[in-house]
Amino acid sequence: MSNYHPLSEAQAIEYARSIPDLFQAGSELASREIGDGNLNLVFHITEPATGKSIILKQALPYAKVVGESWPLTLDRARIESEALQIEEALCPDLVPHVYAYESDLALTVMEDLSDHVIMRRGLIERNQYPLFAEHIGRFLAHTLFFTSDLGKNQQEKKVQLGRFINPELCKITEDLIFDDPYRDAETNSIEPHIRDAAEKIWKDHELHLEVAILRNKFLTSAQALLHGDLHTGSIFIKPDSTKVIDPEFAYYGPMGFDIGAVLANLLLNFAAQEGWSPDPESRTAYRNYLLQTVKDVWTHFERNFRALWNEHGVDRVFQTPGYQDHFMASLLQDTFGFTGAKMVRRIYGLAHVADIDKIEDAAARERAQRMALAIGTTLIRFNRQAKSIDELIELAIKESTVERGFVL
Amino acid sequence: MSNYHPLSEAQAIEYARSIPDLFQAGSELASREIGDGNLNLVFHITEPATGKSIILKQALPYAKVVGESWPLTLDRARIESEALQIEEALCPDLVPHVYAYESDLALTVMEDLSDHVIMRRGLIERNQYPLFAEHIGRFLAHTLFFTSDLGKNQQEKKVQLGRFINPELCKITEDLIFDDPYRDAETNSIEPHIRDAAEKIWKDHELHLEVAILRNKFLTSAQALLHGDLHTGSIFIKPDSTKVIDPEFAYYGPMGFDIGAVLANLLLNFAAQEGWSPDPESRTAYRNYLLQTVKDVWTHFERNFRALWNEHGVDRVFQTPGYQDHFMASLLQDTFGFTGAKMVRRIYGLAHVADIDKIEDAAARERAQRMALAIGTTLIRFNRQAKSIDELIELAIKESTVERGFVL
Repeated sequence: MSNYHPLSEAQAIEYARSIPDLFQAGSELASREIGDGNLNLVFHITEPATGKSIILKQALPYAKVVGESWPLTLDRARIESEALQIEEALCPDLVPHVYAYESDLALTVMEDLSDHVIMRRGLIERNQYPLFAEHIGRFLAHTLFFTSDLGKNQQEKKVQLGRFINPELCKITEDLIFDDPYRDAETNSIEPHIRDAAEKIWKDHELHLEVAILRNKFLTSAQALLHGDLHTGSIFIKPDSTKVIDPEFAYYGPMGFDIGAVLANLLLNFAAQEGWSPDPESRTAYRNYLLQTVKDVWTHFERNFRALWNEHGVDRVFQTPGYQDHFMASLLQDTFGFTGAKMVRRIYGLAHVADIDKIEDAAARERAQRMALAIGTTLIRFNRQAKSIDELIELAIKESTVERGFVL
Repeated sequence: MSNYHPLSEAQAIEYARSIPDLFQAGSELASREIGDGNLNLVFHITEPATGKSIILKQALPYAKVVGESWPLTLDRARIESEALQIEEALCPDLVPHVYAYESDLALTVMEDLSDHVIMRRGLIERNQYPLFAEHIGRFLAHTLFFTSDLGKNQQEKKVQLGRFINPELCKITEDLIFDDPYRDAETNSIEPHIRDAAEKIWKDHELHLEVAILRNKFLTSAQALLHGDLHTGSIFIKPDSTKVIDPEFAYYGPMGFDIGAVLANLLLNFAAQEGWSPDPESRTAYRNYLLQTVKDVWTHFERNFRALWNEHGVDRVFQTPGYQDHFMASLLQDTFGFTGAKMVRRIYGLAHVADIDKIEDAAARERAQRMALAIGTTLIRFNRQAKSIDELIELAIKESTVERGFVL
């Protein structure tokens, strides 16, 4: 990384020109830095003459979170770029195209998705995306199946695992999701009105046992190449298109972690409707949409995953009668647990979600926070008994303590 | 590996001379190649003037098994050498000292253990080793604990895992232990008189499901740096000393696989007493010794492992009340399963054990083979219900179908 230096806008344009077959020789290019400056520089490069545009994303050698700055490996740019390219080979329509990767500069050049919106914002605006469940279900099925021992040559899988050892970013997850929320950690960011709920969780040993078991899976279960951070802020969307971005947390881990990230963020928005829906009817309607989407994501995932297994399974032993059902049952349980863990940390851990934090009415925000904690902790407690995705929907409804009119 | 060439005895002596502080300058050295030539050259280098001696072990770039020859990575010499050094740092008295490792030559120079015998031979001669259970229980506890997320910095563990990606040798295990014995594979080596027992196993779907689950753990559960091939042929022993050798199969896998390897080989010898014990009383006595050792190995392992966890646990979450018991219960179940799988493959898979194959009386050999298969398949079937090591002893006794006089 000796040649690393953060690019200026002029340097970003110069670099963009050097990529073959992209822009016209000698044409005018414009650059705008649109990143939030916390982790990466993000240059939006446009060619006004043709309307063409691309994104240059450059990793910064540090992370800024709540004013703090700590060093962070530039190797995450390689991991992100390689993961994107693996995902693109498996689901070309569901990730941005990667034009180039420059390791010295920790720089990835990729498709511009400015015509999409970040899904979290789309959900806060209460948009519906009827194709999303099919898209993300297929993304999860293809990326998880074909990078696992079920769908990839098992010796090549081991070598690929070696390229995705990602200690620094894994540690962020290990601490912020599986440790800090379950104790009075300095990193927690707790609104005073829900401190009692956090303190209750800190004393709940039954819950802690389940979290320890989930944490162990995150540390040791090398099932598939995960995205690793698949929340609705890592998804660009518009009605006819879904694009998964930012796989810098990619590593070989338990499949249920990625599925749970998607479901958790849908359920966080479900809770957040306390503050966003203008009236009970529209609240019920949007919550119905979200719960149906939760169910559909799992259903599309499972259908695709089982079909891939039956058609493309590389392992004779894993075709043993009963094994597929055993595996899917276990994966569903993991998904319950990771969904719950992903919800809890977003309420009073270090990093919250805008769906809830941006609710201005403090009473509504508190109701949303308590509802998310109730659903999250229930899913964690229940995870090893889970038998079907319908139970997840039922538990979410039960814990939401709102009117039952929207039962699916 | 461009400078690689198999050493002659003269070159082995020359190399031995170049190691600092080992032999006297200019003194006479003698070399004898004592390997079996299948996988490695093994030179025994002695200095008659002082009585000093060492072993030079050089990996060959191929494996010879039943007349066949296939290419095999020389990187296994690095893995073996690094694993030995990690083990030595944790249990200095339980592995040979490594004097030097030369990567170009795939050569490890290590302590000579000629005053020990291979434990498999010692058991065939019906010797007893009263310190063995404590030694190997401690070896297992220390190596598995301190290379796992329980006892090692979790980010350093990930980096170490990356150094022990061992696709070729893992594949040998994946095929020969978890696949071929459960179908009519060409690699199987089946004595005609037990073909019916093998055919019964090939049709047993309940058994296959358990094997698939165990195989999945071998492929995905990166708990600790395993020895990977811890049978009684990988252990040098004498009454007051135990030395574990040959960790060329080392990789990050499920802890129960190493423990199961030890227990399986004790139980294979238990079955083999059909052919080795001169009379029923001595058979019962030696079997009692073996079963007591099986139990003691687990007991010493568990006691040491729990003590290390309580004293040296690096992870706050894993100190959660109830988690240690949950972990140990799960590990015991894995141990049952891997013990069983390790037994079955040794009866009619590619590689057998001398304990049984060298029984000359065909009827006694057959009784031993059927007994080992009965114990092995029962442990596999039972593994996910196991609750205590006593059950393993009880199942072994029940399936041995011999007189009950030797119940512990």
